[in-house]
Parts: sequence; C-alpha cells; structure tokens
Amino acid sequence: MSTPDRSPLEFYFDFLSPFGYFASLRVDALAARHRREIVWKPMLLGISVLKVMKLQPILDTPLKGSYIRQEATRYMRRHRLTLRRELKTPTMNPLPVARLFAWLSVHAHPYAKPFAKAAYHAYWQEEMDICTPETLAPLARTIGLPENVFAEAIADPQASQLLRRAIDAGLELGVFGSPFFRIDGEPFFGCDKLELIDDWLTQDGW
Amino acid sequence: MSTPDRSPLEFYFDFLSPFGYFASLRVDALAARHRREIVWKPMLLGISVLKVMKLQPILDTPLKGSYIRQEATRYMRRHRLTLRRELKTPTMNPLPVARLFAWLSVHAHPYAKPFAKAAYHAYWQEEMDICTPETLAPLARTIGLPENVFAEAIADPQASQLLRRAIDAGLELGVFGSPFFRIDGEPFFGCDKLELIDDWLTQDGW
Repeated sequence: MSTPDRSPLEFYFDFLSPFGYFASLRVDALAARHRREIVWKPMLLGISVLKVMKLQPILDTPLKGSYIRQEATRYMRRHRLTLRRELKTPTMNPLPVARLFAWLSVHAHPYAKPFAKAAYHAYWQEEMDICTPETLAPLARTIGLPENVFAEAIADPQASQLLRRAIDAGLELGVFGSPFFRIDGEPFFGCDKLELIDDWLTQDGW
Repeated sequence: MSTPDRSPLEFYFDFLSPFGYFASLRVDALAARHRREIVWKPMLLGISVLKVMKLQPILDTPLKGSYIRQEATRYMRRHRLTLRRELKTPTMNPLPVARLFAWLSVHAHPYAKPFAKAAYHAYWQEEMDICTPETLAPLARTIGLPENVFAEAIADPQASQLLRRAIDAGLELGVFGSPFFRIDGEPFFGCDKLELIDDWLTQDGW
C-alpha cells in the first residue's frame, strides 16, 4: 500500500477544533483510497491564530462567527457527522492532551493516532474533559496503552518540548489552521478542502 | 428559464477582490446550468472586514497571506484563469466604480452586469485604473451605455446612497466576504464554494 518514493500526507489538527475533528473522521479513508501514508501532527490555534496572526477566535468574530456555525451544521448534514458538544469559543486547555499526543508520536508511535481519535471522540461526542492526567488515563486505557507507558508520558518533562518543537515546525511550514494539510509540500486549509485534495491526489496535482 | 417561485441566486462581490473576479467569470454559467436567475450585488471589504470584523487585509495577515497567494495560483491553474495584476493588498478606491454599479443596478439595470464585467476585466486583466469618472467613461462606452446616462449617473448624488443602502442590506444578511453567495437564504463564502453550490442546487439543499 505504501509508496516509498513519496512523503506521507500531513494532517495538522488542534483537539479543540470541531473542524479538525470532522477532518479526523475522514482523512485516513482519503489517504487509503490513494494508497498514501498519512501522518497526524498537532497544531495549536492559540499560537497560530491568537499569537502569530493576532486574530480573535473565529466564533467571536462579527459576521464570520455566525456564518461558521451555519457552515459547520451544513457540513455535518452533508457528511452525516454529529457533534454533541455545543459549538462555542473553546475554553478548554489543549496543552495536556496535545503534549501526550506529541510524546506518543515519538515514543509509542502505534498508539498516537488511536489516542488522538479516542480523545477527539471523548471531547466532541461524549463531552468529556480531556485536560488533566486523571481524565486522560481512562482514554489511554481504552486504546490499550500500558499503564506504565502512560505514567512515563505524563511524568516526562520532554513532552512539552516535543509539542513545542512540533508546533514550531508547523509554523515554519505555514500551518495556521485546523485542519490543515500538506501534500508533497502543497498546503490546504479547511475541512471543506477534502474533495479538492481528493482531486489533487487523483490528478497528481495541477 | 426563470423559476418565478424562487428568488434569484445572490452573488456579492467587491471590485478590488481577485477572488470576486474569479467567481464573476463562473457564476452566470453556474446559475444557467440550474435554470436560476442570478443577481449581482456590491459589497465592500473595507466595511465588512476592516470596520465591522476589525481584521487586517487578508494578504497582510501573517501565515494566511502567503497561503492565500498559493491558493489563488492553484485555483487559477485549475480553472484556467489568469490575472495580469499582481496579487497584493489593494490600494485602489472601489467606491466610484461600486457607486456607478449600484446606480446602474437601479436606474439602468440591463447595463449593470455588463458594466461590472467590463470593470473587473479592465482592472484585473488590463491593469487599468477604474477609480475616476475619466477612467470609467471608456468602460461605459464599451458596453454601449449612452453618454448621457453615464453623465447622469456620475453626477447623481443618489449613487452613494444607493451603494450605502446595498452595503447595509448585505451586512444585515451576514455578507462579509468577496465572493459571497446567498441561495434561498443559505450563505456561502469563497470562490472555492462554487462546486459545493453546484451540488447544493442539484440536490435542492440537504
């Protein structure tokens, strides 16, 4: 299935992003359809949007906020997706879950993506808190992550460095939104780009 | 061809918007394919984006500015569009041309859309100035607008009121970008929504 001469598709997401969650439910099938590897990478809207771009949260932006709500519900209807959690400006702290994901990506790679999917589901569909070691522990168990590996990840101060390095690398490459995709260097922003990406992969670009 | 039981599709655009220009080249064919009327309406990014949303011009926004440039060239390659004028933060004053368009829309309706197309082409393909009565006059001539009608439009102080009324009406309806579409009340933002709109019209929504 893999094409060793090509780099994997890159999927960047923030756990607090509903559009990142929507994309997370579709990107693996998209990559598989084109026999491409795909790597999931963390990004933080709090850094790119609020600090680097100096914008306010999108749902708080006049005119655009209410448009985005309509676009999200239209997208969900079309792709038969749901969201139990209310769409509002996020107040959750994505750092603990993103740090754990960054650590797993390096030190326990096979668990990283299943963990991200479990965390996304818990947050957006179960309305669970995913912001503390206590709330992350049961998630780690559901994907079969050994208790001692979880304990090591939570205790390892390197986790925050790994996340920071991943975030900086994304910013260097121009990643600013969630979801964001890079395909052989070509950037695509937004979950409504998946159909375009499908065409891009089919035609090998244009 | 018309479907009297349905309101026309609404296409909102700013003359200084390259994405509005791209959309202007495609929207009439889209509407015709679905046997729908379409009405072209002015909007001003300087009001919605800069004043109401309090954002900076998109091409000046860190990270997003360079992304948008890449997206524009990718879009042009795909749809075989060109742009002679350089993509940079607009410095042109869109008020004179938008006022004339608003006036024509009310007082000389058959000339309004041809005028908008001629102005878009002159600005983006010929790199012409379209910001003064002197530069607008030859454009009006190319679409066959009688000299006396053009003179009346330019002299009529009502033109700025008509534009302001149109802009306010758009803002009331949540119009914030260029291009922006409203289809039976449903809002769509961005020229990369045309394929989605095509599906929306085919399926009569979802």
